[in-house]
Amino acid sequence: MSEFDLVIRNGRIATAADITECDLAIRDGRIVAMGENIGAGKQEIDARGLWVLPGGVDAHCHLDQPMPEGLRMADDFYTGTRSAACGGTTTVMPFAAQEKGQSLKAAVEDYHRRAEGKAVIDYAFHLIVTDPTETVLKEELPELIRQGCTSFKIYMTYDDLKLNDGEIIDVLALARSEGAMVMIHAENADCIGWLTKRLLDAGHTAPKYHAASRPMLVEREATHRAIALSELVDVPILVVHVSGAEAVEQIRWARSKGISIYAETCPQYLFLTAEDLGLDGYEGAKCVCSPPPRDQSNQQVIWDGLDDGLFTIFSSDHAPFRYEDPQGKKPNGEEVDFPYIPNGIPGLETRLPLLFSEGVNKGRISLNKFVELTSTNPAKLYGLYPRKGTIAIGADADIAIWDPKREVTIRNEMLHHDVDYTPYEGRTVTGWPIMTLSRGELVWNDGDVLGRAGQGCFLPCGKPDMAKPKVRG
Amino acid sequence: MSEFDLVIRNGRIATAADITECDLAIRDGRIVAMGENIGAGKQEIDARGLWVLPGGVDAHCHLDQPMPEGLRMADDFYTGTRSAACGGTTTVMPFAAQEKGQSLKAAVEDYHRRAEGKAVIDYAFHLIVTDPTETVLKEELPELIRQGCTSFKIYMTYDDLKLNDGEIIDVLALARSEGAMVMIHAENADCIGWLTKRLLDAGHTAPKYHAASRPMLVEREATHRAIALSELVDVPILVVHVSGAEAVEQIRWARSKGISIYAETCPQYLFLTAEDLGLDGYEGAKCVCSPPPRDQSNQQVIWDGLDDGLFTIFSSDHAPFRYEDPQGKKPNGEEVDFPYIPNGIPGLETRLPLLFSEGVNKGRISLNKFVELTSTNPAKLYGLYPRKGTIAIGADADIAIWDPKREVTIRNEMLHHDVDYTPYEGRTVTGWPIMTLSRGELVWNDGDVLGRAGQGCFLPCGKPDMAKPKVRG
Amino acid sequence: MSEFDLVIRNGRIATAADITECDLAIRDGRIVAMGENIGAGKQEIDARGLWVLPGGVDAHCHLDQPMPEGLRMADDFYTGTRSAACGGTTTVMPFAAQEKGQSLKAAVEDYHRRAEGKAVIDYAFHLIVTDPTETVLKEELPELIRQGCTSFKIYMTYDDLKLNDGEIIDVLALARSEGAMVMIHAENADCIGWLTKRLLDAGHTAPKYHAASRPMLVEREATHRAIALSELVDVPILVVHVSGAEAVEQIRWARSKGISIYAETCPQYLFLTAEDLGLDGYEGAKCVCSPPPRDQSNQQVIWDGLDDGLFTIFSSDHAPFRYEDPQGKKPNGEEVDFPYIPNGIPGLETRLPLLFSEGVNKGRISLNKFVELTSTNPAKLYGLYPRKGTIAIGADADIAIWDPKREVTIRNEMLHHDVDYTPYEGRTVTGWPIMTLSRGELVWNDGDVLGRAGQGCFLPCGKPDMAKPKVRG
Amino acid sequence: MSEFDLVIRNGRIATAADITECDLAIRDGRIVAMGENIGAGKQEIDARGLWVLPGGVDAHCHLDQPMPEGLRMADDFYTGTRSAACGGTTTVMPFAAQEKGQSLKAAVEDYHRRAEGKAVIDYAFHLIVTDPTETVLKEELPELIRQGCTSFKIYMTYDDLKLNDGEIIDVLALARSEGAMVMIHAENADCIGWLTKRLLDAGHTAPKYHAASRPMLVEREATHRAIALSELVDVPILVVHVSGAEAVEQIRWARSKGISIYAETCPQYLFLTAEDLGLDGYEGAKCVCSPPPRDQSNQQVIWDGLDDGLFTIFSSDHAPFRYEDPQGKKPNGEEVDFPYIPNGIPGLETRLPLLFSEGVNKGRISLNKFVELTSTNPAKLYGLYPRKGTIAIGADADIAIWDPKREVTIRNEMLHHDVDYTPYEGRTVTGWPIMTLSRGELVWNDGDVLGRAGQGCFLPCGKPDMAKPKVRG
Repeated sequence: MSEFDLVIRNGRIATAADITECDLAIRDGRIVAMGENIGAGKQEIDARGLWVLPGGVDAHCHLDQPMPEGLRMADDFYTGTRSAACGGTTTVMPFAAQEKGQSLKAAVEDYHRRAEGKAVIDYAFHLIVTDPTETVLKEELPELIRQGCTSFKIYMTYDDLKLNDGEIIDVLALARSEGAMVMIHAENADCIGWLTKRLLDAGHTAPKYHAASRPMLVEREATHRAIALSELVDVPILVVHVSGAEAVEQIRWARSKGISIYAETCPQYLFLTAEDLGLDGYEGAKCVCSPPPRDQSNQQVIWDGLDDGLFTIFSSDHAPFRYEDPQGKKPNGEEVDFPYIPNGIPGLETRLPLLFSEGVNKGRISLNKFVELTSTNPAKLYGLYPRKGTIAIGADADIAIWDPKREVTIRNEMLHHDVDYTPYEGRTVTGWPIMTLSRGELVWNDGDVLGRAGQGCFLPCGKPDMAKPKVRG
Repeated sequence: MSEFDLVIRNGRIATAADITECDLAIRDGRIVAMGENIGAGKQEIDARGLWVLPGGVDAHCHLDQPMPEGLRMADDFYTGTRSAACGGTTTVMPFAAQEKGQSLKAAVEDYHRRAEGKAVIDYAFHLIVTDPTETVLKEELPELIRQGCTSFKIYMTYDDLKLNDGEIIDVLALARSEGAMVMIHAENADCIGWLTKRLLDAGHTAPKYHAASRPMLVEREATHRAIALSELVDVPILVVHVSGAEAVEQIRWARSKGISIYAETCPQYLFLTAEDLGLDGYEGAKCVCSPPPRDQSNQQVIWDGLDDGLFTIFSSDHAPFRYEDPQGKKPNGEEVDFPYIPNGIPGLETRLPLLFSEGVNKGRISLNKFVELTSTNPAKLYGLYPRKGTIAIGADADIAIWDPKREVTIRNEMLHHDVDYTPYEGRTVTGWPIMTLSRGELVWNDGDVLGRAGQGCFLPCGKPDMAKPKVRG
Repeated sequence: MSEFDLVIRNGRIATAADITECDLAIRDGRIVAMGENIGAGKQEIDARGLWVLPGGVDAHCHLDQPMPEGLRMADDFYTGTRSAACGGTTTVMPFAAQEKGQSLKAAVEDYHRRAEGKAVIDYAFHLIVTDPTETVLKEELPELIRQGCTSFKIYMTYDDLKLNDGEIIDVLALARSEGAMVMIHAENADCIGWLTKRLLDAGHTAPKYHAASRPMLVEREATHRAIALSELVDVPILVVHVSGAEAVEQIRWARSKGISIYAETCPQYLFLTAEDLGLDGYEGAKCVCSPPPRDQSNQQVIWDGLDDGLFTIFSSDHAPFRYEDPQGKKPNGEEVDFPYIPNGIPGLETRLPLLFSEGVNKGRISLNKFVELTSTNPAKLYGLYPRKGTIAIGADADIAIWDPKREVTIRNEMLHHDVDYTPYEGRTVTGWPIMTLSRGELVWNDGDVLGRAGQGCFLPCGKPDMAKPKVRG
Repeated sequence: MSEFDLVIRNGRIATAADITECDLAIRDGRIVAMGENIGAGKQEIDARGLWVLPGGVDAHCHLDQPMPEGLRMADDFYTGTRSAACGGTTTVMPFAAQEKGQSLKAAVEDYHRRAEGKAVIDYAFHLIVTDPTETVLKEELPELIRQGCTSFKIYMTYDDLKLNDGEIIDVLALARSEGAMVMIHAENADCIGWLTKRLLDAGHTAPKYHAASRPMLVEREATHRAIALSELVDVPILVVHVSGAEAVEQIRWARSKGISIYAETCPQYLFLTAEDLGLDGYEGAKCVCSPPPRDQSNQQVIWDGLDDGLFTIFSSDHAPFRYEDPQGKKPNGEEVDFPYIPNGIPGLETRLPLLFSEGVNKGRISLNKFVELTSTNPAKLYGLYPRKGTIAIGADADIAIWDPKREVTIRNEMLHHDVDYTPYEGRTVTGWPIMTLSRGELVWNDGDVLGRAGQGCFLPCGKPDMAKPKVRG
């Protein structure tokens, strides 16, 4: 009689703190033993020469999110989670988004329906709060928090999404009293509006002017303001998709004052620049996202911040729009002026390999830091830990097995999302996840997608683990 | 036949990243299995309700170090390691100190003799380089590094110890080429000398003027200079015993420029203030150390830095001098002027309980951060990892089992060092290590010292793990 | 036949740069000669031992400004300018304020009527823009600028005054294209609103909670935002009434980035603290102004900024409300909750003596810096120079003759405003202006008010002299 | 009988604060009257369309300074002051330099002999203190201060000049007690030494490696240290020849902490870059000076600092060595390795026209700021004011009359120093001083040198006017 369902032998197991070579055993979808020469499994994987990492937690991605008329996200919960799994990610956290005027609860119910029976890996929901009415603040949010939606994203820009300062304060105060984590998209809407109008008036309509309409001061100002509001209410926040030096400077400044600010960045701020928006005329639309990618010196600032603790998590901000699609980057099939290009780029599947190759393999960050940024910290920050986010006894057997030397040239045709391009087309990376296990089951095995729609389940989140306010003198 | 030598059941095991409740098995002094319901051990410990942490690595302490005539350190390798073990520490890193004019190799040989047959727990050596001659740089240091002494402390103050900038650069350049970690005591000697003379001229001779003679600008200037020299040579350094805001500001500034600076702090900067030097006339001599403790607002800055990643390690800087001793704080039995009071305070045994109680139990830092600062990071930084510094398969079974709720009022009579006072006399803490295991053997068991002199062995250090220079653009 | 109308002999004449002892001659209201032993005047003043300074320019004061129903400013153009003159000031710059919905041009016309025939000294108008409609921006402001109203104040707080970011940008863009100076009241309205509600909900209604409702972060955030908007539009701004360290830090930061930010401070941030709002129950209402006074360490930051160039100008922000008045600090005769106390304190007459005594006489700032901050810089900044703001050939003979050693204990009964209190009651200063000349005529002579209503005239302002954007690389 | 010796009519007179169009009268070498239509002079100058500025005070230049064997400064007091006068400067402040081991008094006596009968314009002496012995500190310096040498330069680099920190503190303490101004050359000698050795070992010997041997961190570190020592002793200092962003950042930081630091910069940091050291092989030796010129972005930082008050004075640091001279840039006629090239570039005559053209005429700084930086502030800082440094009644008639529109292409052949090159050869500037008066006598008149050797006299300096420590709370 074999003791375990699955034993992974001789792998190099990494957590956010440690690296250990030993065997690992799984039973009933959970990790139940680690040790030297442990007993036999019904199945065994020889992981000699491979790295056994906790599956990634992608804590910022957009899947099948209801869009304004005429637009459609290219990935639903099936294609999105499939793509994630094939890139070593085992948990995704997309957004249940409230429309202005809509009930937030209704938005969550709708989003459950969209996810139902589709996901290949487990998933949790962030909320997007666009209309913090009395009902939303007093009734819906507390109830949704109890149901496991313990993090909300709010926007300081986009006409249909943005909150004013008073509304932001209200949401932060609720987060403080109920114990939730607020993610903030920090860009100043009025500044962007003014620049956009000037650019259009001057006939500057091409995709590359998207970057010109959102210079870093726009992000810096909003970041400072978000920090001030967080300080006012005395509740931590997470600044999402930080793009470069000026925002980083504000976050460092805040921490030097003892203010608890968490920060996230994304692959586009390490691997793209504003020049990628200027490629080949309208082709740049493929890289239109907000904040826009900056330049090389800002990329270095982001690398420094990943290594030195400035950044808490590393997410994809996967926002999938097809390029050749009347509901995508070319609305109604037209090459539109830059303000009308849907914002966002795909990245669920490439997030981990890009960071692994250029970060870990090139010595910019340690393997532990990689695990921390891509898996452990997001799981902790959003209350999924210790079920997710690490390799430890009792945790879900969500595991990615990496070949650290595998060379892969990224082509969109090899990816498993439903977007018709990747901004990283043609880039060669070293290191790729060759197997992915979701609760002990292989969902990706060196080229074969084994995961089935509906296999993934909804994860109610607990209270954010890292989110307690600092004790002050 | 029982499978394991020792099994610890149901403890709450913490690493720098994770917390897991499971069983843990030891064989031949190493951790060999973790899991749910693992097999039996010859011995078993029921750790239900207790926390099972990696034993502390105290990476900054002074034991039986040769002193100038008339002075004597109160602790040798026996009493020092005994005291450490009873406070949950399983590895100490004291200093083999070169006298000016002396061979460094000879100093190390002498120090091995002093340690021989005495240590209760394992130990490694840092070097103190006071005379970086051609021979020292070209021959002795490379050889000593190969023998496992891979970290050196250098001083920017103290007449008999200090290096000038050129000598510091030489040592840093050697550290870069050979792969070693340099620890820097950053205070400006000339500033201290000038202030000291003025204070003495004005008749200000009491212990409390020690603090006045070393204001924070003295530490800040030297910290900035050390950073600049590190930047020049492009090699990381560790700034030891950082005391407050002005030095912290410099280190934050350095990191914001992408310069790799590690930082250490000590209990005295969290729990003492300059006012403790002014207690009861000469009694303040008990708290004379350098840099001196500052004030409450600086304590808060240090707490913030422990939590937010500013500090890499937390050490005791145990420097044991008896108060009532003609070779201690009262040289020749006299109450001397402040510049002649031997610098240093005892702290090996209280380091961990103080931080645990006021940090972890009061919510200022997480349990993972506690493990990281006190065990994992020093082990990594000085090349002892993964043998030391964590609880993982294959690691030495150096473990402290804590009762997180045990209330203890600190009295010197209960401590196991050979110093006749503790600066923390009468302070009540919550949480204490009730058992300590060194390579699987109980050396401390709830009041009983079980460790034997000679049981601990010398640990050759590998290359510093965290010390690689950053990749720059 | 005497050559000159008036000769002032042997005074110590100071400008923003120089101090000269010589004679000074006036003809037709202008300074026409300076020299050694110049010819005779019809009148002569022996100024031996006295200091002959350019009359003050108070570039921030409120006189007879239309108020919401139930409130009334205590000083009109007569009592206000009389008080100013008796304190050594020879030009005032109050505000023609647009009500929301009102024509700005109409507001200016109304304000001219209020000033007509009343002023004792010359005056110019700033505008307050509360409703930057298309008409205001495209027609009224350009015309008003041509008519000599070249500076506008805008508010980031107060419900009836505040502009949103988009409106601020519009006003800044107009200032840039037409060449005007924008003064910004920087406090975040939503933060204040939230804190105010919480304080009132907690029953904290006394005047002292005014300070608690506007902590420095509220000013700091708005200051950072104002700087960002100025940077966006690339036009300098003046941040008015800066109160302490956090706002100062932002302005220093902006300058270190090459952004042109001018800054103003006021006596209340040097001589009052938040504790003055807590005096004797409702008495604290006398010191209610926004931003509120801070504490002693912030006062030191303001002193440093006056000395080292951080501050461009020093104004009174005179906003006169009587204490015992149903249209003043006790609306309807009631002691109201703090949010309903009219904001502002009187200060036209005490502005210069306070700064002279505590700044110049105590060695904190030089006499030249005093002249620069209180007269030359405001005249230059707002386009009144060289007619106003200095002692030079061709300038208006607006002169204050100071006895630098006169000791005066400030009592409200000796002041010449129409307010029934001064926040500086009982404070003794050294140095007082004993004569004030407006265009060559004595309006104040050691206790006697000689100025007549209507003697002062409206000054159209030219383009701001210091306001050109920096040349950037 | 004519009333005045000389009347300058209708000029545009500028001081550090004001601009006035009026007549100006001189008698007995002093300015005695200013006014509209003043009486006749024996001589008259029609200055319509011209700018009448106070003659420049060049507070940092080296003339006929004793050199180590084999080197010789190209300019003595005659050629140096002649060159200065022709460039609009009317006071120079070269250095009486102590050699190590030498009496400082003897050095001053020797320097008086070198100046005797040679100067065309007035001059004062700074001291260079290289050996602060007990005698120097206790006897010589106090006596020399009484004799009018109230400022000393000290070096943190150059083997034959540098002081260690203790010596610097001693000199600062003396400056504090006696009231003198200390100028500090801030570069870290040991860092330079180490880099130099590495460069030479690698065969990098060309002039351009001079810049590589002194990167900005070397200047930044020493600047921070100088600030710390100044703070320790609580006495202001002047940091000389600040070259770029990193040093500027330290000075701004110091001021934000309330530490009084004055700063100087020079034309080479506005108009040259490190690339000028790489020109045409050895030609770069012409631009070898310390600190070395940096790059364009640093030039912008220096411009910003001139405009915004960071810099107190603007000097030439004229250090004249001929290029084709065995005692100059090619010692013994050889093209030597970079460490052996004498440091320094000529600049007395071009200092003012370069700043006037690129600063005032291009709108980067105001005319008042030009006067302040180049004349008023150095006169005040070093105790020559109000005799020198402004145009005011009673001041010496040291005046430069500028044609603000004159276009001049700089050629070394038109300059009046005795150096065989200028680093600004071929650069065209707009604006040039067409007449220079020294105490009322024309020494330079549109192409004609009228000044005679010996006409200039020694100026004893008073106590530094701006140098009082700040009053602290």
